[in-house]
Amino acid sequence: MIGPHPTGGYILEELSVGMTAEKHVTVTEERIQRFAEASDDFNPVHVDEAFAAKTAYRGRIAHGLLSASFGSAVVGTILPGAGAIYLGQTLTFHKPVRIGDVVTARATVASIDTESARVVLRCAALVGDEVVMDGEATVRVPRRRRPAKA
Amino acid sequence: MIGPHPTGGYILEELSVGMTAEKHVTVTEERIQRFAEASDDFNPVHVDEAFAAKTAYRGRIAHGLLSASFGSAVVGTILPGAGAIYLGQTLTFHKPVRIGDVVTARATVASIDTESARVVLRCAALVGDEVVMDGEATVRVPRRRRPAKA
Repeated sequence: MIGPHPTGGYILEELSVGMTAEKHVTVTEERIQRFAEASDDFNPVHVDEAFAAKTAYRGRIAHGLLSASFGSAVVGTILPGAGAIYLGQTLTFHKPVRIGDVVTARATVASIDTESARVVLRCAALVGDEVVMDGEATVRVPRRRRPAKA
Repeated sequence: MIGPHPTGGYILEELSVGMTAEKHVTVTEERIQRFAEASDDFNPVHVDEAFAAKTAYRGRIAHGLLSASFGSAVVGTILPGAGAIYLGQTLTFHKPVRIGDVVTARATVASIDTESARVVLRCAALVGDEVVMDGEATVRVPRRRRPAKA
Protein backbone atom coordinates (compact mmCIF):
# COMPACT_ATOMS: atom_id res chain seq x y z
CA MET A 1 0.00 0.00 0.00
CA ILE A 2 1.43 3.38 -0.98
CA GLY A 3 0.52 6.91 0.07
CA PRO A 4 0.45 10.24 -1.75
CA HIS A 5 3.77 11.18 -3.38
CA PRO A 6 5.43 14.21 -1.70
CA THR A 7 5.33 16.16 -4.99
CA GLY A 8 1.62 15.42 -5.43
CA GLY A 9 1.99 12.76 -8.11
CA TYR A 10 4.07 9.83 -9.30
CA ILE A 11 5.83 10.02 -12.67
CA LEU A 12 5.91 7.10 -15.12
CA GLU A 13 9.32 5.83 -14.02
CA GLU A 14 8.21 5.59 -10.38
CA LEU A 15 5.26 3.30 -11.11
CA SER A 16 5.30 -0.50 -11.15
CA VAL A 17 2.63 -3.11 -11.70
CA GLY A 18 0.99 -4.09 -8.42
CA MET A 19 1.35 -0.76 -6.60
CA THR A 20 -1.87 -0.20 -4.64
CA ALA A 21 -3.51 2.73 -2.88
CA GLU A 22 -6.84 3.01 -1.12
CA LYS A 23 -9.01 5.33 0.90
CA HIS A 24 -12.13 4.90 3.02
CA VAL A 25 -15.12 7.17 2.62
CA THR A 26 -18.34 7.02 4.62
CA VAL A 27 -21.44 7.57 2.46
CA THR A 28 -23.51 10.18 4.24
CA GLU A 29 -26.81 11.83 3.43
CA GLU A 30 -24.81 15.02 2.93
CA ARG A 31 -22.52 13.44 0.30
CA ILE A 32 -25.54 12.19 -1.65
CA GLN A 33 -27.14 15.64 -1.45
CA ARG A 34 -23.91 17.34 -2.59
CA PHE A 35 -23.57 14.90 -5.49
CA ALA A 36 -27.20 15.55 -6.52
CA GLU A 37 -26.54 19.30 -6.48
CA ALA A 38 -23.30 18.92 -8.49
CA SER A 39 -24.76 16.58 -11.12
CA ASP A 40 -28.34 17.84 -11.19
CA ASP A 41 -29.34 14.18 -10.67
CA PHE A 42 -32.23 14.34 -8.21
CA ASN A 43 -33.50 10.84 -9.09
CA PRO A 44 -35.83 10.11 -6.15
CA VAL A 45 -34.19 6.72 -5.58
CA HIS A 46 -31.22 8.76 -4.29
CA VAL A 47 -32.89 11.69 -2.55
CA ASP A 48 -36.45 10.72 -1.55
CA GLU A 49 -36.65 8.09 1.20
CA ALA A 50 -40.45 7.61 0.89
CA PHE A 51 -40.17 6.97 -2.87
CA ALA A 52 -37.08 4.79 -2.55
CA ALA A 53 -38.67 2.64 0.15
CA LYS A 54 -41.24 1.47 -2.42
CA THR A 55 -38.65 0.43 -5.02
CA ALA A 56 -36.79 -2.86 -5.38
CA TYR A 57 -33.94 -1.27 -3.37
CA ARG A 58 -36.25 -0.76 -0.34
CA GLY A 59 -34.56 2.50 0.57
CA ARG A 60 -32.31 5.21 -0.76
CA ILE A 61 -29.12 4.25 -2.60
CA ALA A 62 -26.08 6.32 -3.51
CA HIS A 63 -25.59 7.47 -7.11
CA GLY A 64 -23.40 4.89 -8.90
CA LEU A 65 -21.00 7.60 -10.02
CA LEU A 66 -20.63 8.81 -6.42
CA SER A 67 -19.01 5.49 -5.44
CA ALA A 68 -17.03 5.66 -8.68
CA SER A 69 -15.81 9.14 -7.75
CA PHE A 70 -14.14 7.80 -4.60
CA GLY A 71 -11.99 5.60 -6.87
CA SER A 72 -11.28 8.47 -9.21
CA ALA A 73 -10.18 10.49 -6.17
CA VAL A 74 -7.60 7.77 -5.38
CA VAL A 75 -6.34 7.84 -8.98
CA GLY A 76 -6.26 11.65 -9.13
CA THR A 77 -4.80 12.41 -5.72
CA ILE A 78 -2.74 9.36 -4.62
CA LEU A 79 -1.86 6.88 -7.41
CA PRO A 80 -0.61 8.17 -9.84
CA GLY A 81 -1.94 11.43 -8.31
CA ALA A 82 -1.84 14.99 -9.60
CA GLY A 83 -0.32 15.26 -13.07
CA ALA A 84 -2.01 12.14 -14.44
CA ILE A 85 -4.45 12.82 -17.27
CA TYR A 86 -7.67 10.81 -17.12
CA LEU A 87 -8.35 9.16 -20.48
CA GLY A 88 -11.02 6.61 -19.68
CA GLN A 89 -12.91 4.60 -17.11
CA THR A 90 -14.98 1.45 -17.17
CA LEU A 91 -17.39 0.68 -14.33
CA THR A 92 -19.48 -2.34 -13.40
CA PHE A 93 -21.97 -1.92 -10.56
CA HIS A 94 -22.55 -5.08 -8.52
CA LYS A 95 -24.43 -3.97 -5.38
CA PRO A 96 -26.19 -0.81 -4.23
CA VAL A 97 -24.38 1.42 -1.73
CA ARG A 98 -26.40 2.93 1.12
CA ILE A 99 -26.18 5.75 3.62
CA GLY A 100 -23.83 4.71 6.42
CA ASP A 101 -21.78 2.34 4.26
CA VAL A 102 -18.02 2.82 4.51
CA VAL A 103 -16.66 2.43 0.99
CA THR A 104 -13.08 1.31 0.49
CA ALA A 105 -11.92 2.64 -2.87
CA ARG A 106 -8.82 0.86 -4.13
CA ALA A 107 -6.67 1.40 -7.21
CA THR A 108 -3.94 -1.02 -8.32
CA VAL A 109 -1.53 -0.54 -11.21
CA ALA A 110 -2.48 -3.29 -13.69
CA SER A 111 -0.32 -2.44 -16.68
CA ILE A 112 2.13 0.21 -17.87
CA ASP A 113 2.78 1.03 -21.52
CA THR A 114 6.04 2.94 -21.37
CA GLU A 115 5.94 3.83 -25.09
CA SER A 116 2.62 5.74 -24.85
CA ALA A 117 2.98 6.59 -21.12
CA ARG A 118 -0.44 5.02 -20.59
CA VAL A 119 -1.17 3.26 -17.33
CA VAL A 120 -4.19 1.08 -16.56
CA LEU A 121 -5.34 0.87 -12.94
CA ARG A 122 -7.75 -1.75 -11.70
CA CYS A 123 -10.31 0.01 -9.47
CA ALA A 124 -12.63 -1.54 -6.92
CA ALA A 125 -15.07 -0.21 -4.35
CA LEU A 126 -15.78 -2.49 -1.41
CA VAL A 127 -18.22 -2.38 1.49
CA GLY A 128 -16.78 -4.74 4.09
CA ASP A 129 -15.38 -7.64 2.05
CA GLU A 130 -17.94 -7.27 -0.72
CA VAL A 131 -17.00 -5.70 -4.08
CA VAL A 132 -19.85 -3.29 -4.86
CA MET A 133 -18.25 -1.83 -8.00
CA ASP A 134 -15.17 -2.44 -10.11
CA GLY A 135 -13.59 -1.33 -13.35
CA GLU A 136 -10.48 0.09 -14.94
CA ALA A 137 -9.10 3.60 -15.18
CA THR A 138 -6.75 4.55 -18.02
CA VAL A 139 -4.47 7.55 -17.45
CA ARG A 140 -1.51 9.18 -19.15
CA VAL A 141 1.31 9.80 -16.71
CA PRO A 142 4.04 12.44 -17.12
CA ARG A 143 7.60 11.22 -17.66
CA ARG A 144 9.08 14.05 -15.61
CA ARG A 145 7.93 16.70 -13.20
CA ARG A 146 6.81 19.99 -14.65
CA PRO A 147 9.17 22.67 -13.28
CA ALA A 148 7.29 25.13 -11.09
CA LYS A 149 7.01 28.52 -12.75
CA ALA A 150 7.92 31.63 -10.83
CA MET B 1 -35.92 13.87 -28.68
CA ILE B 2 -38.04 12.57 -25.80
CA GLY B 3 -38.80 13.99 -22.38
CA PRO B 4 -39.31 12.42 -18.97
CA HIS B 5 -42.08 9.80 -18.89
CA PRO B 6 -45.12 10.89 -16.83
CA THR B 7 -44.68 7.91 -14.48
CA GLY B 8 -41.01 8.76 -13.92
CA GLY B 9 -39.59 6.02 -16.12
CA TYR B 10 -40.01 4.08 -19.35
CA ILE B 11 -40.57 0.33 -19.21
CA LEU B 12 -38.84 -2.09 -21.59
CA GLU B 13 -41.75 -2.29 -24.04
CA GLU B 14 -41.83 1.49 -24.45
CA LEU B 15 -38.21 1.75 -25.57
CA SER B 16 -36.93 1.54 -29.12
CA VAL B 17 -33.47 1.88 -30.64
CA GLY B 18 -32.71 5.48 -31.55
CA MET B 19 -34.76 7.18 -28.81
CA THR B 20 -32.73 10.16 -27.58
CA ALA B 21 -32.86 12.48 -24.59
CA GLU B 22 -30.57 15.30 -23.54
CA LYS B 23 -30.09 18.03 -20.99
CA HIS B 24 -27.87 21.08 -20.73
CA VAL B 25 -25.88 21.83 -17.61
CA THR B 26 -23.60 24.82 -17.03
CA VAL B 27 -20.40 23.90 -15.22
CA THR B 28 -20.03 26.37 -12.40
CA GLU B 29 -17.43 26.82 -9.69
CA GLU B 30 -20.17 25.78 -7.25
CA ARG B 31 -20.81 22.45 -9.05
CA ILE B 32 -17.09 21.63 -8.97
CA GLN B 33 -16.94 22.52 -5.26
CA ARG B 34 -20.03 20.38 -4.51
CA PHE B 35 -18.56 17.46 -6.46
CA ALA B 36 -15.27 17.79 -4.56
CA GLU B 37 -17.16 17.73 -1.25
CA ALA B 38 -19.24 14.71 -2.32
CA SER B 39 -16.33 12.67 -3.68
CA ASP B 40 -13.58 13.88 -1.33
CA ASP B 41 -11.58 14.59 -4.52
CA PHE B 42 -9.84 17.90 -3.85
CA ASN B 43 -7.24 17.40 -6.59
CA PRO B 44 -5.85 20.94 -6.99
CA VAL B 45 -6.30 20.77 -10.76
CA HIS B 46 -10.02 21.02 -9.98
CA VAL B 47 -10.12 23.34 -6.98
CA ASP B 48 -6.96 25.49 -6.93
CA GLU B 49 -6.73 28.03 -9.75
CA ALA B 50 -3.13 29.06 -8.96
CA PHE B 51 -1.96 25.42 -9.07
CA ALA B 52 -4.05 24.55 -12.14
CA ALA B 53 -2.74 27.57 -14.08
CA LYS B 54 0.76 26.03 -13.96
CA THR B 55 -0.34 22.63 -15.36
CA ALA B 56 -0.73 21.55 -18.98
CA TYR B 57 -4.44 22.50 -18.66
CA ARG B 58 -3.53 26.17 -17.94
CA GLY B 59 -6.46 26.53 -15.56
CA ARG B 60 -8.97 24.60 -13.52
CA ILE B 61 -10.87 21.72 -15.14
CA ALA B 62 -13.99 19.88 -14.00
CA HIS B 63 -13.69 16.39 -12.54
CA GLY B 64 -14.16 13.86 -15.38
CA LEU B 65 -16.87 12.07 -13.42
CA LEU B 66 -18.75 15.36 -12.95
CA SER B 67 -19.34 15.59 -16.71
CA ALA B 68 -20.13 11.87 -16.69
CA SER B 69 -22.71 12.43 -13.96
CA PHE B 70 -24.71 14.76 -16.23
CA GLY B 71 -25.13 11.80 -18.61
CA SER B 72 -26.01 9.46 -15.79
CA ALA B 73 -28.65 12.01 -14.71
CA VAL B 74 -30.23 11.75 -18.18
CA VAL B 75 -30.23 7.95 -17.96
CA GLY B 76 -31.57 7.91 -14.39
CA THR B 77 -34.22 10.62 -14.67
CA ILE B 78 -35.32 10.82 -18.35
CA LEU B 79 -34.35 7.82 -20.52
CA PRO B 80 -35.13 5.18 -19.32
CA GLY B 81 -35.58 7.17 -16.10
CA ALA B 82 -36.47 6.05 -12.58
CA GLY B 83 -36.82 2.28 -12.29
CA ALA B 84 -33.82 1.48 -14.47
CA ILE B 85 -31.01 -0.29 -12.63
CA TYR B 86 -27.51 0.89 -13.51
CA LEU B 87 -25.29 -2.08 -14.34
CA GLY B 88 -22.30 -0.51 -16.01
CA GLN B 89 -20.75 2.48 -17.68
CA THR B 90 -17.78 3.04 -19.98
CA LEU B 91 -16.29 6.50 -20.38
CA THR B 92 -13.68 8.00 -22.68
CA PHE B 93 -12.53 11.53 -21.94
CA HIS B 94 -11.55 13.56 -25.02
CA LYS B 95 -11.26 17.18 -23.89
CA PRO B 96 -11.17 18.97 -20.53
CA VAL B 97 -14.34 20.77 -19.39
CA ARG B 98 -13.96 24.20 -17.80
CA ILE B 99 -15.94 26.57 -15.59
CA GLY B 100 -18.54 28.34 -17.73
CA ASP B 101 -18.84 25.51 -20.28
CA VAL B 102 -22.40 24.45 -21.04
CA VAL B 103 -22.37 20.67 -21.30
CA THR B 104 -24.99 18.91 -23.42
CA ALA B 105 -25.41 15.41 -22.00
CA ARG B 106 -27.13 13.09 -24.47
CA ALA B 107 -28.25 9.48 -24.17
CA THR B 108 -29.47 7.40 -27.12
CA VAL B 109 -30.85 3.87 -26.98
CA ALA B 110 -28.27 1.80 -28.89
CA SER B 111 -29.54 -1.74 -28.30
CA ILE B 112 -32.23 -3.61 -26.41
CA ASP B 113 -31.94 -7.22 -25.29
CA THR B 114 -35.55 -8.17 -24.56
CA GLU B 115 -34.58 -11.57 -23.12
CA SER B 116 -32.40 -10.13 -20.34
CA ALA B 117 -34.20 -6.74 -20.21
CA ARG B 118 -30.78 -5.09 -20.69
CA VAL B 119 -30.56 -1.85 -22.60
CA VAL B 120 -27.38 -0.16 -23.80
CA LEU B 121 -27.43 3.63 -24.20
CA ARG B 122 -24.77 5.53 -26.08
CA CYS B 123 -23.84 8.57 -23.98
CA ALA B 124 -22.05 11.71 -25.09
CA ALA B 125 -21.17 15.02 -23.46
CA LEU B 126 -20.67 17.95 -25.83
CA VAL B 127 -19.48 21.51 -25.38
CA GLY B 128 -20.71 23.36 -28.44
CA ASP B 129 -20.31 20.84 -31.27
CA GLU B 130 -17.32 19.16 -29.70
CA VAL B 131 -17.61 15.76 -28.03
CA VAL B 132 -15.72 16.09 -24.75
CA MET B 133 -16.65 12.65 -23.41
CA ASP B 134 -18.50 9.58 -24.64
CA GLY B 135 -19.27 6.04 -23.59
CA GLU B 136 -21.99 3.50 -22.99
CA ALA B 137 -24.37 2.94 -20.11
CA THR B 138 -25.86 -0.50 -19.52
CA VAL B 139 -29.10 -0.65 -17.52
CA ARG B 140 -31.74 -3.22 -16.65
CA VAL B 141 -35.23 -1.89 -17.34
CA PRO B 142 -38.43 -3.14 -15.67
CA ARG B 143 -40.97 -4.94 -17.87
CA ARG B 144 -43.89 -3.40 -16.00
CA ARG B 145 -44.53 -0.62 -13.54
CA ARG B 146 -44.19 -1.47 -9.87
CA PRO B 147 -47.61 -0.90 -8.31
CA ALA B 148 -47.48 1.89 -5.75
CA LYS B 149 -47.96 0.55 -2.24
CA ALA B 150 -50.41 2.26 0.07
